Amino acid sequence: MFAKDVYVRRRQTLIGSMKAQGASGIALFLGNVESPAQYRDNCYKFRQDSNWLYYFGIDEPRYAAVLDLDSGEETVFADDVEIDDIIWMGPMPSVASVADGVGVAHSAPYGALGDAVASARNLGRKVHFLPASRYYNALKLGELLGVNPYETFSKGKAGCPAASLEMVRAVVQMRLVKEDIEIAELDHACTLGQQMHTVARQGIRIGVKEQEIVGAMEALTLAKGWGVSFATILTQHGEIFHCHSHEALIEPGKLLVIDAGLETNGHYASDFTRTYPTGGKFTARQRDIYQLVYECNEHAFSITRPGIAYLDVHLSVARRMLEGLKDLGLVCGDLDAMVEQGIAGLFMPHGLGHNMGLDVHDMEDLGENLVGYGPGQQRSAQLGLGSLRMARPLVPGNVVTDEPGIYFIPALIEQWKKEGTDKGFVNYGKLASYYDFGGIRLEDDVLITEGGARRLGSDRLPIAPDDVEAAMAADKG
Amino acid sequence: MFAKDVYVRRRQTLIGSMKAQGASGIALFLGNVESPAQYRDNCYKFRQDSNWLYYFGIDEPRYAAVLDLDSGEETVFADDVEIDDIIWMGPMPSVASVADGVGVAHSAPYGALGDAVASARNLGRKVHFLPASRYYNALKLGELLGVNPYETFSKGKAGCPAASLEMVRAVVQMRLVKEDIEIAELDHACTLGQQMHTVARQGIRIGVKEQEIVGAMEALTLAKGWGVSFATILTQHGEIFHCHSHEALIEPGKLLVIDAGLETNGHYASDFTRTYPTGGKFTARQRDIYQLVYECNEHAFSITRPGIAYLDVHLSVARRMLEGLKDLGLVCGDLDAMVEQGIAGLFMPHGLGHNMGLDVHDMEDLGENLVGYGPGQQRSAQLGLGSLRMARPLVPGNVVTDEPGIYFIPALIEQWKKEGTDKGFVNYGKLASYYDFGGIRLEDDVLITEGGARRLGSDRLPIAPDDVEAAMAADKG
Repeated sequence: MFAKDVYVRRRQTLIGSMKAQGASGIALFLGNVESPAQYRDNCYKFRQDSNWLYYFGIDEPRYAAVLDLDSGEETVFADDVEIDDIIWMGPMPSVASVADGVGVAHSAPYGALGDAVASARNLGRKVHFLPASRYYNALKLGELLGVNPYETFSKGKAGCPAASLEMVRAVVQMRLVKEDIEIAELDHACTLGQQMHTVARQGIRIGVKEQEIVGAMEALTLAKGWGVSFATILTQHGEIFHCHSHEALIEPGKLLVIDAGLETNGHYASDFTRTYPTGGKFTARQRDIYQLVYECNEHAFSITRPGIAYLDVHLSVARRMLEGLKDLGLVCGDLDAMVEQGIAGLFMPHGLGHNMGLDVHDMEDLGENLVGYGPGQQRSAQLGLGSLRMARPLVPGNVVTDEPGIYFIPALIEQWKKEGTDKGFVNYGKLASYYDFGGIRLEDDVLITEGGARRLGSDRLPIAPDDVEAAMAADKG
Repeated sequence: MFAKDVYVRRRQTLIGSMKAQGASGIALFLGNVESPAQYRDNCYKFRQDSNWLYYFGIDEPRYAAVLDLDSGEETVFADDVEIDDIIWMGPMPSVASVADGVGVAHSAPYGALGDAVASARNLGRKVHFLPASRYYNALKLGELLGVNPYETFSKGKAGCPAASLEMVRAVVQMRLVKEDIEIAELDHACTLGQQMHTVARQGIRIGVKEQEIVGAMEALTLAKGWGVSFATILTQHGEIFHCHSHEALIEPGKLLVIDAGLETNGHYASDFTRTYPTGGKFTARQRDIYQLVYECNEHAFSITRPGIAYLDVHLSVARRMLEGLKDLGLVCGDLDAMVEQGIAGLFMPHGLGHNMGLDVHDMEDLGENLVGYGPGQQRSAQLGLGSLRMARPLVPGNVVTDEPGIYFIPALIEQWKKEGTDKGFVNYGKLASYYDFGGIRLEDDVLITEGGARRLGSDRLPIAPDDVEAAMAADKG
């Protein structure tokens, strides 16, 4: 948790920003409750809501708050502990003192939240709320506001139309630009994330079960931080983006994609991807594709600076990638036309990167389009570019991932071939020999600075193909 | 997953048992969906619903099923993957083939579930369902059945009055008695759980952060199994039962309580507790209390066998504990009267044990009273005994924990003193010197056999005080 004045200032800025958009009424915040894994009292590790953490910092379940936009009054709602709770959870500070610790003057029992919202509604005052990112909060919002709970739930790209646009916009504006104290936390998350990846790389041995490597790397996230910032991807099927099965044994001649991050105890994320030849040496074919992905990663970083839209960085990477694929004979034709037609999407059906902060895909619950697209920017319908989560013109304080990848997905290639999606740019004959290739992705985390950009963390993970092979040789001692 | 015929047989037994209670209509099962940690697409590690696993075994999200009690027809509801899903999750078998793999003849899209339930309701047929253990399933049940979602949610001890009593009873009856294939899984869970505890013990060093030990022990749960079976308790404040903060450094002269378990990839739980002197040697005062808790653990096991109610094992342990506390001068008076008055509850304000299986507190979502209390058994209102989760007469195949503990909880002692709850049996003068003691708990997992009982797992963790000290000395090499 940061100092009291951080939270006071943030809430004042939020209220100011909402009022500047013409908003009045109350702003309702719901922290998270515990999330059942097996049943109500056997829960997943508690993870507080990120927006709550940003404005209130209190890392305990079952808190809520109301900010009165008109009077400026702030109230935190939570229950003081009783003797039974003390037996189970130990002595706890009073809610009033916890609220005071983040500069909130008023507190009330959790059960009083219903009355507080009801009296605002009865006076015809608007109740601003953010999209619910969990089902309990959707239930609670439904109850408080008298609407269908599903209507309050975050629906992904489009966000939640029933939520307050003024509140969402104000939050996005603030959280998109990281403060220095946040950058320090992100650097810490990335340094630990790099250590985590080093542990993983050192565990790669032919015949080892993937799950063993996952256990070793996640150990570090638990020993040094809150845990993983998202479900670890560690797979010899890099062409399957969200492959969370870790049953396979490491086989010779494969490429192992490791996409994993750590969340600090202060709840800031890191997110790195590296791809390793399982035996420690790339084959010639693997090295060609790897070198191209590596160059795309470097190229993106080299042009990332304030003023350029990340959409244009994505497109520039797509062009660089197609250029390399053309050299390899996998595509043919005019480069500009291929970029225009979205041909890169066949090989990289995802975006170049996303915002990162308290969430690994920062603020995804607020609606990707509102978070990642600025005024006048429209999300593309093309495969790949259409999945770009961050398209905005960059400003200092933005934190984005730089994660190009090339994958050979047989089902997708067959679909494009059948439907002629490639407009003749793709050399299917040559591509057929890559059906067993898998995929490669290389990802760093990047801060936009006044002068350009800086990769976060202490020591960049080896990434150039020779450096990767050297590191793996050194690992084997 | 077990063989097809296991699931076929279990569902037939379930239907037979429900019909024997006079039930008709349909039995509705909801598997779990992914549970958001930060936002809809950044989820906690998927954990399937245990009842679903027991009857259908399919370990994938967003499955549901309907069993027709009258016609015997069985239908699984889930969606086949589309091209977008293949990119993100890889090629998947069809729902029809997955259903066939567990002996279910019919399948339909997930969206068809609404119609299936609606047509049963329109015909006036009863829709049997189990209490929802997660908020999404409560929302879904609310929607399917046209009721307030909260009404379908499991409320702890009392369960969920809106759920089907016939269905709950039938499930409890079956899951209480573990099959041989389940016992093999539980033995595996316990063997790995013992390894996990050994790693933890080896990590105990003065000055180490508790979180470091947690990371090392949980690594094993991820490398060898699904993960932890519940949130790890590792604390030098053993008197706080659910202390999940791991920020403290290991200090000399303390007692470290480690209560932790592993869940196998097949989703069976283990649950062990050991208490260690942080410096490797018990003080005289620590050893006195430790010895007593150890004797209570041994005493419970020695009388645990088919025919005895676990309620009576708890009471016998309470008597043994009070006898020891009397020898130490902490309580005084007639033993039988102290047991009757529930004086042991001041020192052990929890039950002796609980059922264990697919859930660490097995079937807690179905309602503790229905799970742990048989006909004619009433839950006590006394502190400690009132928290006993398993009171039933034992039968072969039951799996229970044996986890006596003694804690010195200042706030609780002060409350008893103020309110005279102890009826003069407690020696508060002597007790005052134990306010900084903390707590001790010692837990094993026990299978009820034809002839008596057997501790699960391969090698029992050192538990006798001399053995603990010897193991810690050996750890230090």
